[in-house]
Amino acid sequence: MPVLVVDIGGRSVKLGLSGSPEIRAVPSGPDLRPRAMVERVRAVTTDWVFDRVSIGVPGPVRDGHLIAEPVNLGGGWLGFDLEHAFGLPTRVVNDAALQALGSWERGKMLFLGLGTGLGSALVVEGVVLSLELAHLPYRCGRTYEDYLGARGLERLGEERWREAVGDVVARLKAAMVADEVVLGGGNAQRLTELPPHCRRGDNARSIVGGERLWQPGWRVL
Amino acid sequence: MPVLVVDIGGRSVKLGLSGSPEIRAVPSGPDLRPRAMVERVRAVTTDWVFDRVSIGVPGPVRDGHLIAEPVNLGGGWLGFDLEHAFGLPTRVVNDAALQALGSWERGKMLFLGLGTGLGSALVVEGVVLSLELAHLPYRCGRTYEDYLGARGLERLGEERWREAVGDVVARLKAAMVADEVVLGGGNAQRLTELPPHCRRGDNARSIVGGERLWQPGWRVL
Repeated sequence: MPVLVVDIGGRSVKLGLSGSPEIRAVPSGPDLRPRAMVERVRAVTTDWVFDRVSIGVPGPVRDGHLIAEPVNLGGGWLGFDLEHAFGLPTRVVNDAALQALGSWERGKMLFLGLGTGLGSALVVEGVVLSLELAHLPYRCGRTYEDYLGARGLERLGEERWREAVGDVVARLKAAMVADEVVLGGGNAQRLTELPPHCRRGDNARSIVGGERLWQPGWRVL
Repeated sequence: MPVLVVDIGGRSVKLGLSGSPEIRAVPSGPDLRPRAMVERVRAVTTDWVFDRVSIGVPGPVRDGHLIAEPVNLGGGWLGFDLEHAFGLPTRVVNDAALQALGSWERGKMLFLGLGTGLGSALVVEGVVLSLELAHLPYRCGRTYEDYLGARGLERLGEERWREAVGDVVARLKAAMVADEVVLGGGNAQRLTELPPHCRRGDNARSIVGGERLWQPGWRVL
Protein backbone atom coordinates (compact mmCIF):
# COMPACT_ATOMS: atom_id res chain seq x y z
CA MET A 1 0.00 0.00 0.00
CA PRO A 2 2.18 2.92 -1.12
CA VAL A 3 1.91 6.12 0.92
CA LEU A 4 2.40 9.65 -0.38
CA VAL A 5 4.25 11.60 2.32
CA VAL A 6 3.85 15.39 2.31
CA ASP A 7 6.22 17.23 4.65
CA ILE A 8 5.17 20.89 4.74
CA GLY A 9 7.99 23.23 5.72
CA GLY A 10 8.17 26.99 5.79
CA ARG A 11 10.21 27.16 2.58
CA SER A 12 9.31 24.03 0.67
CA VAL A 13 6.93 21.09 0.70
CA LYS A 14 8.90 17.84 0.44
CA LEU A 15 7.27 14.83 -1.15
CA GLY A 16 8.14 11.18 -0.96
CA LEU A 17 6.62 7.88 -1.89
CA SER A 18 7.03 4.94 0.48
CA GLY A 19 9.52 2.43 -0.87
CA SER A 20 11.22 4.97 -3.16
CA PRO A 21 14.33 7.02 -2.38
CA GLU A 22 13.22 9.91 -4.61
CA ILE A 23 12.31 13.21 -2.93
CA ARG A 24 10.45 15.93 -4.83
CA ALA A 25 9.63 19.41 -3.61
CA VAL A 26 7.31 22.29 -4.37
CA PRO A 27 7.59 25.83 -3.00
CA SER A 28 6.08 26.84 0.33
CA GLY A 29 6.11 30.22 2.06
CA PRO A 30 4.19 32.66 4.24
CA ASP A 31 1.39 32.91 1.65
CA LEU A 32 0.84 29.18 1.13
CA ARG A 33 -2.81 28.21 1.55
CA PRO A 34 -3.93 24.58 1.75
CA ARG A 35 -5.79 24.51 -1.57
CA ALA A 36 -2.68 25.75 -3.43
CA MET A 37 -0.52 23.20 -1.57
CA VAL A 38 -2.77 20.33 -2.65
CA GLU A 39 -2.75 21.54 -6.29
CA ARG A 40 1.05 21.87 -6.38
CA VAL A 41 1.49 18.44 -4.83
CA ARG A 42 -0.94 16.84 -7.28
CA ALA A 43 0.77 18.53 -10.25
CA VAL A 44 4.19 16.98 -9.52
CA THR A 45 3.02 13.52 -8.46
CA THR A 46 0.79 12.50 -11.38
CA ASP A 47 3.18 9.61 -12.16
CA TRP A 48 3.20 8.30 -8.57
CA VAL A 49 0.80 5.57 -7.50
CA PHE A 50 -0.38 5.64 -3.89
CA ASP A 51 -3.56 4.94 -2.00
CA ARG A 52 -3.06 6.88 1.21
CA VAL A 53 -1.47 10.13 2.32
CA SER A 54 0.60 11.18 5.38
CA ILE A 55 0.99 14.91 5.99
CA GLY A 56 3.32 16.75 8.36
CA VAL A 57 2.17 20.30 9.08
CA PRO A 58 4.16 23.03 10.86
CA GLY A 59 1.57 23.68 13.55
CA PRO A 60 -0.05 22.07 16.59
CA VAL A 61 -2.08 18.95 15.77
CA ARG A 62 -4.50 17.14 18.02
CA ASP A 63 -6.10 13.81 17.06
CA GLY A 64 -5.21 14.32 13.40
CA HIS A 65 -6.42 17.90 13.11
CA LEU A 66 -4.65 21.23 13.27
CA ILE A 67 -5.80 23.11 16.35
CA ALA A 68 -4.27 26.48 15.36
CA GLU A 69 -3.16 28.11 12.11
CA PRO A 70 0.49 27.34 11.25
CA VAL A 71 2.41 30.53 12.08
CA ASN A 72 4.72 30.52 9.07
CA LEU A 73 2.23 29.72 6.27
CA GLY A 74 -0.74 31.52 4.68
CA GLY A 75 -4.20 31.29 6.27
CA GLY A 76 -7.11 28.92 5.77
CA TRP A 77 -5.52 25.78 7.21
CA LEU A 78 -7.61 25.49 10.34
CA GLY A 79 -10.67 23.38 9.54
CA PHE A 80 -9.53 22.65 5.97
CA ASP A 81 -10.31 19.00 5.16
CA LEU A 82 -7.03 17.64 3.76
CA GLU A 83 -8.41 14.13 3.46
CA HIS A 84 -11.30 15.35 1.34
CA ALA A 85 -8.93 17.44 -0.82
CA PHE A 86 -6.67 14.45 -1.55
CA GLY A 87 -9.62 12.09 -1.93
CA LEU A 88 -7.72 9.33 -0.12
CA PRO A 89 -7.33 8.14 3.48
CA THR A 90 -5.10 10.81 5.01
CA ARG A 91 -3.28 11.16 8.35
CA VAL A 92 -2.09 14.54 9.57
CA VAL A 93 0.57 15.06 12.26
CA ASN A 94 2.87 17.85 13.34
CA ASP A 95 5.95 18.10 11.10
CA ALA A 96 8.41 17.61 13.97
CA ALA A 97 6.43 14.55 15.09
CA LEU A 98 6.61 13.17 11.54
CA GLN A 99 10.38 13.46 11.31
CA ALA A 100 10.78 12.29 14.90
CA LEU A 101 8.72 9.18 14.20
CA GLY A 102 10.87 8.38 11.18
CA SER A 103 14.12 9.08 13.04
CA TRP A 104 13.46 6.77 15.95
CA GLU A 105 15.72 3.74 16.28
CA ARG A 106 15.61 2.74 19.95
CA GLY A 107 15.10 3.95 23.51
CA LYS A 108 13.77 7.35 24.47
CA MET A 109 14.55 9.84 21.72
CA LEU A 110 14.10 13.62 21.86
CA PHE A 111 13.75 15.32 18.48
CA LEU A 112 14.53 19.03 18.09
CA GLY A 113 13.87 20.69 14.74
CA LEU A 114 16.20 23.64 14.15
CA GLY A 115 14.28 25.56 11.49
CA THR A 116 12.39 28.84 11.37
CA GLY A 117 11.02 27.89 14.77
CA LEU A 118 12.03 25.12 17.16
CA GLY A 119 9.99 21.93 16.80
CA SER A 120 10.08 19.21 19.42
CA ALA A 121 8.79 15.69 19.96
CA LEU A 122 9.59 12.71 22.16
CA VAL A 123 9.50 9.14 20.83
CA VAL A 124 9.57 5.82 22.64
CA GLU A 125 8.76 2.53 21.00
CA GLY A 126 5.18 2.73 19.82
CA VAL A 127 4.45 6.29 20.94
CA VAL A 128 5.22 9.74 19.54
CA LEU A 129 4.51 12.67 21.85
CA SER A 130 4.28 16.11 20.28
CA LEU A 131 5.91 18.70 22.50
CA GLU A 132 5.97 22.51 22.49
CA LEU A 133 9.22 23.17 24.33
CA ALA A 134 10.04 26.16 22.10
CA HIS A 135 8.21 28.75 24.19
CA LEU A 136 9.52 27.83 27.62
CA PRO A 137 11.75 30.47 29.23
CA TYR A 138 15.46 29.93 28.77
CA ARG A 139 17.58 32.97 29.54
CA CYS A 140 17.30 36.74 29.96
CA GLY A 141 13.53 36.67 29.48
CA ARG A 142 13.87 34.88 26.14
CA THR A 143 12.64 31.44 25.14
CA TYR A 144 14.45 28.41 23.71
CA GLU A 145 13.08 29.34 20.28
CA ASP A 146 14.37 32.92 20.65
CA TYR A 147 17.85 31.40 20.92
CA LEU A 148 17.72 28.32 18.66
CA GLY A 149 15.24 29.38 15.96
CA ALA A 150 16.11 31.32 12.80
CA ARG A 151 15.78 34.70 14.53
CA GLY A 152 18.15 33.50 17.26
CA LEU A 153 20.70 32.48 14.67
CA GLU A 154 20.47 35.92 13.08
CA ARG A 155 20.73 37.77 16.39
CA LEU A 156 23.52 35.65 17.94
CA GLY A 157 25.62 34.83 14.89
CA GLU A 158 26.62 31.31 14.04
CA GLU A 159 29.22 30.77 16.77
CA ARG A 160 27.12 31.89 19.73
CA TRP A 161 24.10 30.11 18.22
CA ARG A 162 26.09 26.86 18.18
CA GLU A 163 27.01 27.35 21.83
CA ALA A 164 23.36 27.91 22.68
CA VAL A 165 22.39 24.73 20.79
CA GLY A 166 24.92 22.72 22.82
CA ASP A 167 23.70 24.14 26.12
CA VAL A 168 19.98 23.75 25.35
CA VAL A 169 20.38 20.22 23.99
CA ALA A 170 22.11 19.13 27.21
CA ARG A 171 19.43 20.73 29.40
CA LEU A 172 16.45 19.39 27.47
CA LYS A 173 17.96 15.92 27.11
CA ALA A 174 18.35 15.80 30.92
CA ALA A 175 14.86 17.21 31.53
CA MET A 176 13.21 14.67 29.24
CA VAL A 177 15.49 11.86 30.53
CA ALA A 178 16.20 10.98 26.89
CA ASP A 179 18.77 8.44 25.70
CA GLU A 180 19.59 10.43 22.60
CA VAL A 181 18.70 13.61 20.75
CA VAL A 182 18.10 13.92 17.02
CA LEU A 183 18.71 17.39 15.61
CA GLY A 184 16.68 17.98 12.46
CA GLY A 185 15.51 21.03 10.54
CA GLY A 186 17.41 23.02 7.95
CA ASN A 187 19.81 24.65 10.40
CA ALA A 188 21.09 21.36 11.85
CA GLN A 189 23.56 21.40 8.96
CA ARG A 190 25.24 24.45 10.46
CA LEU A 191 26.47 22.43 13.41
CA THR A 192 30.07 21.48 12.78
CA GLU A 193 30.24 19.27 15.86
CA LEU A 194 27.30 17.51 17.42
CA PRO A 195 26.76 17.58 21.20
CA PRO A 196 27.18 14.22 23.00
CA HIS A 197 24.48 11.57 22.39
CA CYS A 198 23.21 13.48 19.36
CA ARG A 199 22.49 12.42 15.80
CA ARG A 200 21.75 14.70 12.89
CA GLY A 201 18.26 14.34 11.42
CA ASP A 202 17.69 13.63 7.77
CA ASN A 203 14.76 14.88 5.69
CA ALA A 204 14.40 11.42 4.20
CA ARG A 205 13.37 10.23 7.66
CA SER A 206 10.10 12.13 7.28
CA ILE A 207 9.20 9.68 4.54
CA VAL A 208 9.89 6.79 6.91
CA GLY A 209 7.73 8.62 9.47
CA GLY A 210 4.89 8.88 6.96
CA GLU A 211 5.09 5.14 6.35
CA ARG A 212 5.17 4.33 10.06
CA LEU A 213 2.03 6.43 10.57
CA TRP A 214 0.11 3.65 8.80
CA GLN A 215 1.84 0.77 10.57
CA PRO A 216 0.06 -0.86 13.50
CA GLY A 217 1.75 -0.36 16.83
CA TRP A 218 2.42 3.38 16.49
CA ARG A 219 0.40 6.10 18.19
CA VAL A 220 0.92 9.85 17.81
CA LEU A 221 -0.23 11.68 20.95
CA MET B 1 -1.53 -11.70 43.73
CA PRO B 2 -1.38 -9.01 46.43
CA VAL B 3 1.31 -6.37 46.05
CA LEU B 4 3.09 -4.52 48.85
CA VAL B 5 3.58 -0.92 47.73
CA VAL B 6 6.39 1.05 49.36
CA ASP B 7 6.35 4.77 48.59
CA ILE B 8 9.56 6.29 49.97
CA GLY B 9 9.28 10.00 50.70
CA GLY B 10 11.69 12.39 52.37
CA ARG B 11 9.72 12.40 55.65
CA SER B 12 7.92 9.07 55.72
CA VAL B 13 7.67 5.76 53.92
CA LYS B 14 4.04 5.01 53.06
CA LEU B 15 2.92 1.43 52.79
CA GLY B 16 -0.12 -0.05 51.15
CA LEU B 17 -1.42 -3.46 50.19
CA SER B 18 -3.23 -3.85 46.88
CA GLY B 19 -6.95 -4.30 47.41
CA SER B 20 -6.89 -2.70 50.85
CA PRO B 21 -7.63 0.95 51.71
CA GLU B 22 -5.31 0.91 54.73
CA ILE B 23 -2.16 3.02 54.60
CA ARG B 24 0.65 2.52 57.10
CA ALA B 25 3.79 4.61 57.46
CA VAL B 26 7.26 4.42 58.97
CA PRO B 27 9.68 7.33 59.42
CA SER B 28 12.06 8.44 56.68
CA GLY B 29 14.62 11.25 56.71
CA PRO B 30 18.04 12.41 55.53
CA ASP B 31 19.74 9.51 57.36
CA LEU B 32 17.54 6.70 56.02
CA ARG B 33 19.59 3.89 54.52
CA PRO B 34 18.03 1.06 52.51
CA ARG B 35 18.69 -1.72 55.04
CA ALA B 36 16.92 0.26 57.79
CA MET B 37 14.04 1.02 55.44
CA VAL B 38 13.53 -2.65 54.66
CA GLU B 39 13.66 -3.58 58.36
CA ARG B 40 11.13 -0.89 59.33
CA VAL B 41 8.80 -1.94 56.52
CA ARG B 42 9.01 -5.61 57.48
CA ALA B 43 8.36 -4.79 61.13
CA VAL B 44 5.00 -3.12 60.48
CA THR B 45 3.72 -5.47 57.77
CA THR B 46 4.11 -8.86 59.44
CA ASP B 47 0.31 -9.35 59.29
CA TRP B 48 0.09 -8.48 55.54
CA VAL B 49 0.18 -11.24 52.94
CA PHE B 50 1.77 -10.34 49.59
CA ASP B 51 3.94 -12.03 47.02
CA ARG B 52 5.47 -9.10 45.19
CA VAL B 53 6.70 -5.59 45.98
CA SER B 54 6.49 -2.23 44.18
CA ILE B 55 8.79 0.53 45.39
CA GLY B 56 8.81 4.26 44.58
CA VAL B 57 12.14 5.92 45.34
CA PRO B 58 12.86 9.67 45.39
CA GLY B 59 15.67 9.54 42.84
CA PRO B 60 16.32 8.87 39.15
CA VAL B 61 15.55 5.29 38.08
CA ARG B 62 16.49 3.61 34.85
CA ASP B 63 15.24 0.15 33.89
CA GLY B 64 14.26 -0.61 37.47
CA HIS B 65 17.48 0.58 39.11
CA LEU B 66 18.46 3.82 40.82
CA ILE B 67 21.12 5.57 38.74
CA ALA B 68 22.08 8.12 41.43
CA GLU B 69 21.76 8.36 45.20
CA PRO B 70 18.46 9.94 46.31
CA VAL B 71 19.35 13.50 47.40
CA ASN B 72 17.11 13.65 50.45
CA LEU B 73 17.86 10.26 52.05
CA GLY B 74 20.90 8.64 53.65
CA GLY B 75 23.53 6.91 51.53
CA GLY B 76 23.97 3.35 50.33
CA TRP B 77 20.99 3.20 47.97
CA LEU B 78 22.90 3.03 44.71
CA GLY B 79 23.53 -0.61 43.88
CA PHE B 80 21.55 -1.90 46.89
CA ASP B 81 19.53 -4.94 45.80
CA LEU B 82 16.00 -4.20 47.05
CA GLU B 83 14.60 -7.35 45.46
CA HIS B 84 17.09 -9.50 47.33
CA ALA B 85 16.38 -7.65 50.59
CA PHE B 86 12.63 -8.24 50.31
CA GLY B 87 13.09 -11.78 49.01
CA LEU B 88 10.21 -11.34 46.55
CA PRO B 89 9.81 -10.17 42.96
CA THR B 90 10.27 -6.40 43.24
CA ARG B 91 9.83 -3.48 40.83
CA VAL B 92 11.44 -0.12 41.51
CA VAL B 93 10.37 3.17 39.91
CA ASN B 94 10.80 6.84 40.65
CA ASP B 95 8.32 8.04 43.31
CA ALA B 96 6.77 10.68 41.04
CA ALA B 97 6.35 8.05 38.31
CA LEU B 98 4.64 5.75 40.84
CA GLN B 99 2.08 8.33 41.88
CA ALA B 100 1.69 9.52 38.29
CA LEU B 101 0.95 5.98 37.11
CA GLY B 102 -1.69 5.58 39.81
CA SER B 103 -3.22 8.99 39.11
CA TRP B 104 -3.73 8.49 35.40
CA GLU B 105 -7.33 8.38 34.20
CA ARG B 106 -7.24 9.35 30.50
CA GLY B 107 -5.40 11.33 27.83
CA LYS B 108 -1.98 12.88 28.27
CA MET B 109 -1.39 13.65 31.94
CA LEU B 110 1.47 15.64 33.43
CA PHE B 111 2.24 14.91 37.09
CA LEU B 112 4.06 17.44 39.24
CA GLY B 113 5.04 16.49 42.78
CA LEU B 114 5.23 19.52 45.08
CA GLY B 115 7.39 18.18 47.88
CA THR B 116 10.91 18.82 49.12
CA GLY B 117 11.89 18.88 45.44
CA LEU B 118 9.77 18.98 42.31
CA GLY B 119 9.04 15.56 40.81
CA SER B 120 7.65 15.20 37.31
CA ALA B 121 6.32 12.48 35.01
CA LEU B 122 4.17 12.25 31.92
CA VAL B 123 1.60 9.48 31.46
CA VAL B 124 -0.34 8.37 28.41
CA GLU B 125 -2.27 5.13 28.20
CA GLY B 126 0.23 2.32 28.64
CA VAL B 127 3.34 4.45 29.13
CA VAL B 128 4.83 6.38 32.04
CA LEU B 129 7.73 8.68 31.21
CA SER B 130 9.90 9.87 34.07
CA LEU B 131 10.90 13.50 33.61
CA GLU B 132 13.39 15.77 35.35
CA LEU B 133 11.83 19.17 34.65
CA ALA B 134 12.83 20.49 38.09
CA HIS B 135 16.27 21.75 37.09
CA LEU B 136 15.35 23.61 33.91
CA PRO B 137 15.81 27.38 34.12
CA TYR B 138 12.68 29.35 34.97
CA ARG B 139 13.32 32.91 36.08
CA CYS B 140 16.13 35.15 37.34
CA GLY B 141 18.73 32.38 37.03
CA ARG B 142 16.66 30.03 39.19
CA THR B 143 15.05 26.71 38.30
CA TYR B 144 11.45 25.48 38.53
CA GLU B 145 12.43 23.59 41.70
CA ASP B 146 13.95 26.74 43.21
CA TYR B 147 10.48 28.28 42.97
CA LEU B 148 8.10 25.34 43.52
CA GLY B 149 10.08 23.10 45.88
CA ALA B 150 10.16 23.42 49.68
CA ARG B 151 12.99 25.98 49.63
CA GLY B 152 10.99 28.07 47.15
CA LEU B 153 7.96 28.01 49.43
CA GLU B 154 10.14 29.18 52.33
CA ARG B 155 11.79 31.94 50.31
CA LEU B 156 8.68 33.22 48.54
CA GLY B 157 6.04 32.78 51.22
CA GLU B 158 2.80 30.97 50.58
CA GLU B 159 1.08 33.61 48.45
CA ARG B 160 3.90 34.21 45.96
CA TRP B 161 4.62 30.46 45.92
CA ARG B 162 0.99 29.83 44.86
CA GLU B 163 1.34 32.39 42.08
CA ALA B 164 4.50 30.67 40.88
CA VAL B 165 2.74 27.29 40.93
CA GLY B 166 -0.05 28.69 38.73
CA ASP B 167 2.40 30.20 36.25
CA VAL B 168 4.67 27.14 36.05
CA VAL B 169 1.77 24.71 35.73
CA ALA B 170 0.39 26.66 32.75
CA ARG B 171 3.79 26.80 31.06
CA LEU B 172 4.69 23.15 31.57
CA LYS B 173 1.21 21.95 30.61
CA ALA B 174 1.57 23.84 27.30
CA ALA B 175 5.14 22.62 26.73
CA MET B 176 4.19 18.98 27.28
CA VAL B 177 0.91 19.43 25.33
CA ALA B 178 -0.85 17.75 28.25
CA ASP B 179 -4.62 17.41 28.65
CA GLU B 180 -4.47 17.74 32.40
CA VAL B 181 -2.06 18.21 35.27
CA VAL B 182 -2.11 16.31 38.55
CA LEU B 183 -0.50 18.15 41.46
CA GLY B 184 0.76 15.72 44.09
CA GLY B 185 3.28 15.90 46.91
CA GLY B 186 2.77 17.16 50.43
CA ASN B 187 2.58 20.84 49.50
CA ALA B 188 -0.25 20.40 46.97
CA GLN B 189 -2.55 20.75 49.98
CA ARG B 190 -1.43 24.36 50.35
CA LEU B 191 -3.12 25.34 47.10
CA THR B 192 -6.47 26.88 47.93
CA GLU B 193 -7.50 27.05 44.28
CA LEU B 194 -6.25 24.74 41.57
CA PRO B 195 -5.12 26.13 38.20
CA PRO B 196 -7.34 25.23 35.20
CA HIS B 197 -7.26 21.57 34.03
CA CYS B 198 -5.65 20.50 37.30
CA ARG B 199 -6.50 17.80 39.78
CA ARG B 200 -4.99 17.35 43.20
CA GLY B 201 -3.01 14.16 43.66
CA ASP B 202 -3.74 11.71 46.43
CA ASN B 203 -1.19 9.56 48.27
CA ALA B 204 -3.52 6.59 47.94
CA ARG B 205 -2.91 6.76 44.20
CA SER B 206 0.65 5.54 44.76
CA ILE B 207 -0.87 2.25 45.88
CA VAL B 208 -2.85 2.06 42.64
CA GLY B 209 0.40 2.87 40.80
CA GLY B 210 2.15 0.00 42.57
CA GLU B 211 -0.61 -2.38 41.47
CA ARG B 212 -0.51 -1.13 37.88
CA LEU B 213 3.25 -1.74 37.77
CA TRP B 214 2.43 -5.46 37.70
CA GLN B 215 -0.40 -5.23 35.19
CA PRO B 216 0.34 -6.07 31.57
CA GLY B 217 0.07 -3.12 29.23
CA TRP B 218 2.03 -0.61 31.32
CA ARG B 219 5.63 0.40 30.65
CA VAL B 220 7.69 2.81 32.79
CA LEU B 221 10.34 4.54 30.65
